[in-house]
Amino acid sequence: MAVALCPGSFDPPTNGHIDVVRRAARHFEKVIVSVVENPSKDPVFEVEQRVALMKEAFSDLSNVEVEQHSGLLVDLAKRRGADVIVKGFRASSDFDYELQMAQMNASLLEGVDTLFIATSPKWSFISSSLVKEVARLGGDVSELVPASVAAALASRFTS
Amino acid sequence: MAVALCPGSFDPPTNGHIDVVRRAARHFEKVIVSVVENPSKDPVFEVEQRVALMKEAFSDLSNVEVEQHSGLLVDLAKRRGADVIVKGFRASSDFDYELQMAQMNASLLEGVDTLFIATSPKWSFISSSLVKEVARLGGDVSELVPASVAAALASRFTS
Amino acid sequence: MAVALCPGSFDPPTNGHIDVVRRAARHFEKVIVSVVENPSKDPVFEVEQRVALMKEAFSDLSNVEVEQHSGLLVDLAKRRGADVIVKGFRASSDFDYELQMAQMNASLLEGVDTLFIATSPKWSFISSSLVKEVARLGGDVSELVPASVAAALASRFTS
Amino acid sequence: MAVALCPGSFDPPTNGHIDVVRRAARHFEKVIVSVVENPSKDPVFEVEQRVALMKEAFSDLSNVEVEQHSGLLVDLAKRRGADVIVKGFRASSDFDYELQMAQMNASLLEGVDTLFIATSPKWSFISSSLVKEVARLGGDVSELVPASVAAALASRFTS
Amino acid sequence: MAVALCPGSFDPPTNGHIDVVRRAARHFEKVIVSVVENPSKDPVFEVEQRVALMKEAFSDLSNVEVEQHSGLLVDLAKRRGADVIVKGFRASSDFDYELQMAQMNASLLEGVDTLFIATSPKWSFISSSLVKEVARLGGDVSELVPASVAAALASRFTS
Amino acid sequence: MAVALCPGSFDPPTNGHIDVVRRAARHFEKVIVSVVENPSKDPVFEVEQRVALMKEAFSDLSNVEVEQHSGLLVDLAKRRGADVIVKGFRASSDFDYELQMAQMNASLLEGVDTLFIATSPKWSFISSSLVKEVARLGGDVSELVPASVAAALASRFTS
Repeated sequence: MAVALCPGSFDPPTNGHIDVVRRAARHFEKVIVSVVENPSKDPVFEVEQRVALMKEAFSDLSNVEVEQHSGLLVDLAKRRGADVIVKGFRASSDFDYELQMAQMNASLLEGVDTLFIATSPKWSFISSSLVKEVARLGGDVSELVPASVAAALASRFTS
Repeated sequence: MAVALCPGSFDPPTNGHIDVVRRAARHFEKVIVSVVENPSKDPVFEVEQRVALMKEAFSDLSNVEVEQHSGLLVDLAKRRGADVIVKGFRASSDFDYELQMAQMNASLLEGVDTLFIATSPKWSFISSSLVKEVARLGGDVSELVPASVAAALASRFTS
Repeated sequence: MAVALCPGSFDPPTNGHIDVVRRAARHFEKVIVSVVENPSKDPVFEVEQRVALMKEAFSDLSNVEVEQHSGLLVDLAKRRGADVIVKGFRASSDFDYELQMAQMNASLLEGVDTLFIATSPKWSFISSSLVKEVARLGGDVSELVPASVAAALASRFTS
Repeated sequence: MAVALCPGSFDPPTNGHIDVVRRAARHFEKVIVSVVENPSKDPVFEVEQRVALMKEAFSDLSNVEVEQHSGLLVDLAKRRGADVIVKGFRASSDFDYELQMAQMNASLLEGVDTLFIATSPKWSFISSSLVKEVARLGGDVSELVPASVAAALASRFTS
Repeated sequence: MAVALCPGSFDPPTNGHIDVVRRAARHFEKVIVSVVENPSKDPVFEVEQRVALMKEAFSDLSNVEVEQHSGLLVDLAKRRGADVIVKGFRASSDFDYELQMAQMNASLLEGVDTLFIATSPKWSFISSSLVKEVARLGGDVSELVPASVAAALASRFTS
Repeated sequence: MAVALCPGSFDPPTNGHIDVVRRAARHFEKVIVSVVENPSKDPVFEVEQRVALMKEAFSDLSNVEVEQHSGLLVDLAKRRGADVIVKGFRASSDFDYELQMAQMNASLLEGVDTLFIATSPKWSFISSSLVKEVARLGGDVSELVPASVAAALASRFTS
């Protein structure tokens, strides 16, 4: 019935992202992870690699699809018949921007709702940007990201 | 498939509450509106009247049930087979308390997730307590609540 | 030209309140300080005494009036021809409630705007409730409130 | 009497900006819209075009002037005899930065006050940066900005 | 050398409180836990019982003292030669009030600083009031508070 | 006994930074100011000059050391035997990021705690970035930074 979109840069995917998508997959019939190409930033991983890392993370879940995306999120929602966007929620500083995005998307495509899932406390301090900073400085991020992501970060920053 | 709980005091129901439940009813198979008796506050309307007002608001929706509730929310979730709690989200000042409640409920009943729906901008400034204050002082709340609630407030405060 | 309302409980007035009203008096032709009776709280000072303390604080300003008020603020605004409500702004935790009040008032009386003045840093940590708590416990509040208010607090709490 | 400055990048002007300036023009004798050149960012529209778009938006208001500006805001305030800076207020995440700016400006030019006007709920989710992002991706922004701005965005992004 | 005060109502003590005091005890020579009698609220446990529960929680730490307190915190600080107040920090909604208290205390007793310790993520959703609410409704709080507190809550709410 | 790290970019040092370090120096046996090289930003002053400006600011305090730093903060903490990181706290918008950093550092090096000191109200509106912006535009920052920093900014921006 309900199809949910989980958009993000996932540069790189963290245990927090994985947790949110897995929980969405329990509540919705299909979850489409939409990996944003994000041309305005300079990503550490190319979008193809981010898609591959996310696919690997959900290889055991038959109702999760992963695809890259570069346009308006509401165009993807319309094309795929999704009427729910699911985002993780970590801290109140995320709130105002996410509320603004949710209301903008609702104004662009009537009937699309954004649902926020509270991040698990144990992943609450993890963000992609902080993981990248720690990995770049040689810190151990193996508790914060899937093993495949830790390996990708290691080969990216220690070469 | 997915059964959602929408808990609240609803003292009184506002257009913001109605909007959140109606949107939840589009995304979930069944929505159970749980009207909290709330013994710690001194409500303007008895729980039975709040249940009646909410039932009337959703009389056209066959997948919305309304019932009163007085114990732990997670006990109701377990009894009714609900694994999703849906809350409206109005302002960032709601955030920390709601996050705390969501994480507490997840710790009390594993697998229960709280999903937040962003309030529509046009209802963003409406809360039950502000509606009550305006109605008590003789202001016009007919744009802010269903007609039946406006009538109930009028008979409550102008007698 | 422009008439501004400065509403509040002022229980008691603090140097922060005085500062906001004085600054409003520089920018608007007339400032009406509206002392809210506030029946829902148990005030330390009766509304008449709060009016008297505010009048004394602005006795040198000919364009500031002080009056007590018990109904809807927008009714007072209409009656007095005020189209601006001026509030002090101390901390971001004030924000959501004040925004909600401002938007509610704008919905109740079209054309009424609420303008917020940033509190001076040196008064940023002063609130009526904290001043009362310190005075009740015997602390020195003479730097935080006008002399007449300090005297009133002393006679209220040390008798 | 009171002259108000409305500073901003206005890259591009949105319906939210227009709303704030129009409301300021009701409460102050003269409003000077100060379009900041903003050398630290890479604007989508040159400052001359942003000035032209803002002038067009207020062509019916005789007490609104629009000019470009590149130095300290308090220097412009002093030169033009303005003692009030007026800013729109959209979300609590704006708060801390705006409070900091207001207090900094007050420390640089004694007597200058910053007044904040709450954004109308219906424009609360609109920001220049989000409008640009939507327009760049081909979304319809005609409900969010004046027609002249929508045309300028279309010719900027679809060529 | 440095003596730290840890003030609070501790009604009841939670694992979050215990964690903060234990960490303070690692960084300061002596920690004085100051259990506030808090006459303005209606506590679940009398101050003597709260003191006893806190004493039991730190019976293994020789540099932690627990005492009840009913006046100004800065008076206790002066009497005990403490120049540091240590508070736990759970969420940004705590921030503005705690900052206000810290600056008020610094204005009442020059040289007193308030230091905030970030709560561990795994206790971030626990507050005394939420623990009381869950316990009152029959929920299991044994993961959230020390065993002695869980027992005290059980005998308080199930009799 | 306790060694505290005070990390920061200090580009440039402000009176707010100086105040925080001086207060830390009263409460801890040794304070190590760690000037982060910060390769991801384009600093106004080279790290060597920032170290020199900080050293000059604390030349009267024998328990303050200043050194530059380019790796993980927790590696410096381990090497220098510091178990406390001290940060200034200015506004609630700092909160979520600082909490995230504190919890990340605690996860990378068990036993390391981050303590936050509330900024004095009179420096609450000062940040390095705002000081730079004012100085770049020719404003007077002599009340906001030490004299040596004001001189360095003048020679940097007026040449």
